[in-house]
Amino acid sequence: MPTRRELANVIRVLAMDAVQQANSGHPGAPMGMADMAEVVWREFLKHNPANPRWWNRDRFVLSNGHASMMLYAVLHLTGYPLSMDELRHFRQLGSRTPGHPEHDPAIGVETTTGPLGQGLANAVGMALAEKVLSAQFNRPDLNVVDHYTWVFAGDGCLMEGISHEAASLAGTLALGKLICLYDSNGISIDGKVVGWYTDDTPRRFESYGWQVISVNGQDGDAVAAAIRTAQAHTARPSLICCRTEIGYPAPTRGGTAKAHGEPLGADEVAAVRKLLNWTEPPFVVPAALREAWNCEAKGRAAEQSWQALYARYRAAHPELAAELARRMQSQLPASWPAIQAQCVAAARATSGSQATRQSSQTMLNTLCPVLPELFGGSADLTGSNNTLAKSARVLTPGEFAGSYLHYGVREFGMTAMLNGMSLHGGLIPFGGTFLTFSDYARNAVRLAALMHLRVILVYSHDSIGLGEDGPTHQPIEHLSSLRLMPHLHVWRPCDALETAVAWCAVIERMDGPAALVLTRQGLAQAAAAAAPEQIARGGYVLHDCDGVPESIVIATGSEVAPALDAVKAAQAKGARVRLVSMPCTEVYDAQDGAWRESVLPAKVTRRLAIEAGATGLWWRYVGSAGRVLGIDEFGASGKGPELFRKYGLDPDNIAKVVLEFAR
Amino acid sequence: MPTRRELANVIRVLAMDAVQQANSGHPGAPMGMADMAEVVWREFLKHNPANPRWWNRDRFVLSNGHASMMLYAVLHLTGYPLSMDELRHFRQLGSRTPGHPEHDPAIGVETTTGPLGQGLANAVGMALAEKVLSAQFNRPDLNVVDHYTWVFAGDGCLMEGISHEAASLAGTLALGKLICLYDSNGISIDGKVVGWYTDDTPRRFESYGWQVISVNGQDGDAVAAAIRTAQAHTARPSLICCRTEIGYPAPTRGGTAKAHGEPLGADEVAAVRKLLNWTEPPFVVPAALREAWNCEAKGRAAEQSWQALYARYRAAHPELAAELARRMQSQLPASWPAIQAQCVAAARATSGSQATRQSSQTMLNTLCPVLPELFGGSADLTGSNNTLAKSARVLTPGEFAGSYLHYGVREFGMTAMLNGMSLHGGLIPFGGTFLTFSDYARNAVRLAALMHLRVILVYSHDSIGLGEDGPTHQPIEHLSSLRLMPHLHVWRPCDALETAVAWCAVIERMDGPAALVLTRQGLAQAAAAAAPEQIARGGYVLHDCDGVPESIVIATGSEVAPALDAVKAAQAKGARVRLVSMPCTEVYDAQDGAWRESVLPAKVTRRLAIEAGATGLWWRYVGSAGRVLGIDEFGASGKGPELFRKYGLDPDNIAKVVLEFAR
Repeated sequence: MPTRRELANVIRVLAMDAVQQANSGHPGAPMGMADMAEVVWREFLKHNPANPRWWNRDRFVLSNGHASMMLYAVLHLTGYPLSMDELRHFRQLGSRTPGHPEHDPAIGVETTTGPLGQGLANAVGMALAEKVLSAQFNRPDLNVVDHYTWVFAGDGCLMEGISHEAASLAGTLALGKLICLYDSNGISIDGKVVGWYTDDTPRRFESYGWQVISVNGQDGDAVAAAIRTAQAHTARPSLICCRTEIGYPAPTRGGTAKAHGEPLGADEVAAVRKLLNWTEPPFVVPAALREAWNCEAKGRAAEQSWQALYARYRAAHPELAAELARRMQSQLPASWPAIQAQCVAAARATSGSQATRQSSQTMLNTLCPVLPELFGGSADLTGSNNTLAKSARVLTPGEFAGSYLHYGVREFGMTAMLNGMSLHGGLIPFGGTFLTFSDYARNAVRLAALMHLRVILVYSHDSIGLGEDGPTHQPIEHLSSLRLMPHLHVWRPCDALETAVAWCAVIERMDGPAALVLTRQGLAQAAAAAAPEQIARGGYVLHDCDGVPESIVIATGSEVAPALDAVKAAQAKGARVRLVSMPCTEVYDAQDGAWRESVLPAKVTRRLAIEAGATGLWWRYVGSAGRVLGIDEFGASGKGPELFRKYGLDPDNIAKVVLEFAR
Repeated sequence: MPTRRELANVIRVLAMDAVQQANSGHPGAPMGMADMAEVVWREFLKHNPANPRWWNRDRFVLSNGHASMMLYAVLHLTGYPLSMDELRHFRQLGSRTPGHPEHDPAIGVETTTGPLGQGLANAVGMALAEKVLSAQFNRPDLNVVDHYTWVFAGDGCLMEGISHEAASLAGTLALGKLICLYDSNGISIDGKVVGWYTDDTPRRFESYGWQVISVNGQDGDAVAAAIRTAQAHTARPSLICCRTEIGYPAPTRGGTAKAHGEPLGADEVAAVRKLLNWTEPPFVVPAALREAWNCEAKGRAAEQSWQALYARYRAAHPELAAELARRMQSQLPASWPAIQAQCVAAARATSGSQATRQSSQTMLNTLCPVLPELFGGSADLTGSNNTLAKSARVLTPGEFAGSYLHYGVREFGMTAMLNGMSLHGGLIPFGGTFLTFSDYARNAVRLAALMHLRVILVYSHDSIGLGEDGPTHQPIEHLSSLRLMPHLHVWRPCDALETAVAWCAVIERMDGPAALVLTRQGLAQAAAAAAPEQIARGGYVLHDCDGVPESIVIATGSEVAPALDAVKAAQAKGARVRLVSMPCTEVYDAQDGAWRESVLPAKVTRRLAIEAGATGLWWRYVGSAGRVLGIDEFGASGKGPELFRKYGLDPDNIAKVVLEFAR
């Protein structure tokens, strides 16, 4: 039987050879963490390489994603369908081994990492999902949801602010089955971290309520012992601080920043081979090592044992088992069409002025009781975002049978946790903050979009209309800057009915995140008479003129109602002007040409877009003969209506501009 | 003489009355922190209300900006030119007392706060600026730069990730004249923080190397004693944890989240009046209290004493004194035109292929030796961002005579610190990261723009062209989403000369931040023959056709050189096509109509924009008859040239599209 160190060395050699072959990449971290990886992946991780989608597998997150070759090596070696040929094509276009890990459930890559710190927060989300589903589904002696979440993180991850947000909340929630191995190698890209990073990290994590254990990360037995200690105490998450040498055992580059982000070079690679007594050519692993690494049999047995448990569970609790299956497979319940109809009916019952954040709350009151997979929360703005459904039960530390979490003032951590929950499966996570603070979480929104995750972002306080809190709180560029993000759907509904359709659309959408952009202030029910199927197209004719229109007004959200009044007034004066409501430009853009031509006919070139936000993106819809009424300046502190007046978006000015434009 | 508590109660009453009057705002934090404010502002803060711009004043930052009424109250009471009438108009349009503090140097508001946590990081930047300037300018017995930086922060600030980044670095750097008073009231908007925030904060800050002192924050003498201890130990920054009751002494709302973000209501206000024996009507302060609060005489004396010191300094070191004055007044040196000429000459000396990040480094090598106020750094990507000038000396902990800082992997903290340094004065701060990680720092960029700060962001690795690092590292939407931010100038130069002009432009710009967006990969010198004055217009004709153009190609950055080849090839086939380079759309947009018409004549409607990024914003420039060649999808891991091919932005496809379009 090979030694732990011999087994770990397989990772070292594969990593340095693949980086050398690609002439690009990060050899140092995989080489430094090889012993940690050997211990976790061969001895502790509960996984079945033949079925990477097994629900009850342990989750593994490589938060320091630049160490991707470590992950690809262990996936290949333990038996996942990731061939040596893929490793040979590390970082090449079209390979399954991109420069940083990209969510790839078929081969066991649990999440996309690279932007530092977010993997740790993803893992906190996964560990939370495990706790929530355990509390909802497990029954005495039938723990069908029962797994660990593992995360490897580096100095960069722990320097990032998001590590504070995620670790602090994980400590408060006592996520005891979360185990983080910190690769403490004392090196980051600029050199020895002692010049810019001198935290007493054990003390820091103890302050969060974590169990902290420090070991030599290149002593496999010591790492294994630390993990046993971590697993023995499940009342607190565990941080295992592993001292390692980056690039070990490269003779000149080991322990230096040079080992971080570039190939070692042929001489150094040869020297490492010699030091490790490694005689095989690149990408060849001796049979004995290969055999000792393979986890297929062990994995199959592990899943079979769980399958037997699950069979007993199914027999004892058939309805619960079916519900768990439904949720883990991301299926909506059979009653979904009826639920949608209920949402539309609830919205249609709305009359008078209502803020869309309030309309959204009404939807949650309708949806949450019948879709228990909806898992809500807010970054300390629950009452403002209106994210807490009447039926929702709030999680408290250590007590996980709930469907709502107070995330605290942690927008970035929250959003990356939503990503982790979505990746885990079994939950549809949504979380709220003010639209302007989407800035704090922006890269996590991007990763949700990149991974095509079903994550719902509830962004209230969508414009200067929020009033006195002033320019720091008033979004200007946010709406359009979110629209620029590929795969993200941005809905800005104009009333209760559009809000209902938006909520249904984002819940139905399986393959990407959505932002619901909501007002603080009350809005008239401008779209009450519209057909939900039309609204669901993202852009539609809300109010038409007789005959062929000479001009078209396009509006979104809070600008629709005043635009409707303005269009009606202009029509009364004989203008043939049409009003288009455009709650979601991305969904509208994805409609077939016939629909788009029916809404915005090419020959009607006089078009005016109205939105209380940056104008730049609207030129695409209004064209050269068009005009955009918006705001390209920061807001101010004052009453909402006064601000609309100051920036020319009050009903009077909208009426004036529309009339001028339409005739 | 009134007691401390009586003096503090003036803040309490003003805050609750102003919020009540506005019917909007946050009474709780000012009431809870009133005693802390009294101690700091009356006893310790070195300031001259008659001259809020005195260079050597202590800086005060209210990081929990929603407590704005506390700040307005003390500014008014100590004698700043902020009238009671302004307090009466709290949160009203046009007042000097907006909902959250907005940078207003004339009345002593040092920075804009509200987005939580950033004020703390601003303060770290200010404290760093003080250290750097001290090291550069102070001489034995002539400490002309010598002040404290104070910051008040709440639970929300300390939950935010940026607090970790900023506090960790402040600890490493041993910024001993930074004193943070933490308003630990145990309440955030969602209620008692114990449900989501249970950090042992003293332990956390000790892990960063801070001195931590815990006191009853409503016992003024205890707070004063803690401050004396903090000031006695200047080897470490200090955190004073002040236990307070939010909204104290409101009988029913005190100590609850209800006190946080809404008026107390008339009954509660009356009850507080009774408890405090406060008989005056709103906005009336008894003369004895007013007199005890006034700091004008003390402030005048403090500044006069410093002026005497400065006079001695000027006599002993006339050149240093002049240089300090120049830098504190944000004036460029008299040699600036010559420096610019040097930059252009250095750029023109470039031949062959060069990455613009390298061209940028050449500029820094030229600029940094002659503009010592340039203070550089990178969020752990120094070698990749090329931000370290040859002449720059790197700061090390405790040794501040340098002009470059390794910020560690802390993009958000870095950017908010740049803001703090710019606010402090005396430095022109710049900092680097990859363009994609501007996401992490986005709200700090926004605050720089909102405050019109001279902050320079160096964003390298600007597109899919960076290659193998893959989609997490490849910006797509970033360029345009930054362009949407008001007041921010986004430069994407196409070669060494455009990079030189961009650097000069952003240094000359006094009233707003700029982002320099740079390539990783080499680019041909496409604009070498252009006139710097034209480039400085943001958009200009780089290569024209004979006669009136029939079509126009607009390109930026890495797409200019292939577009130039393509345009020349199309011209060779008889097409009358013009090439416009558009390195900065914001600057171009600000040109007069004649310039814009000369570049993009209205009658030439066939326009094609080419940029390796999101297309949406370009429709504004190409119009309905136009076309945009860009990328509205995430990138991939592979070699840069292969990616350009995959996404249709390789030279061959650009040539093909231009030819099709132009003829």
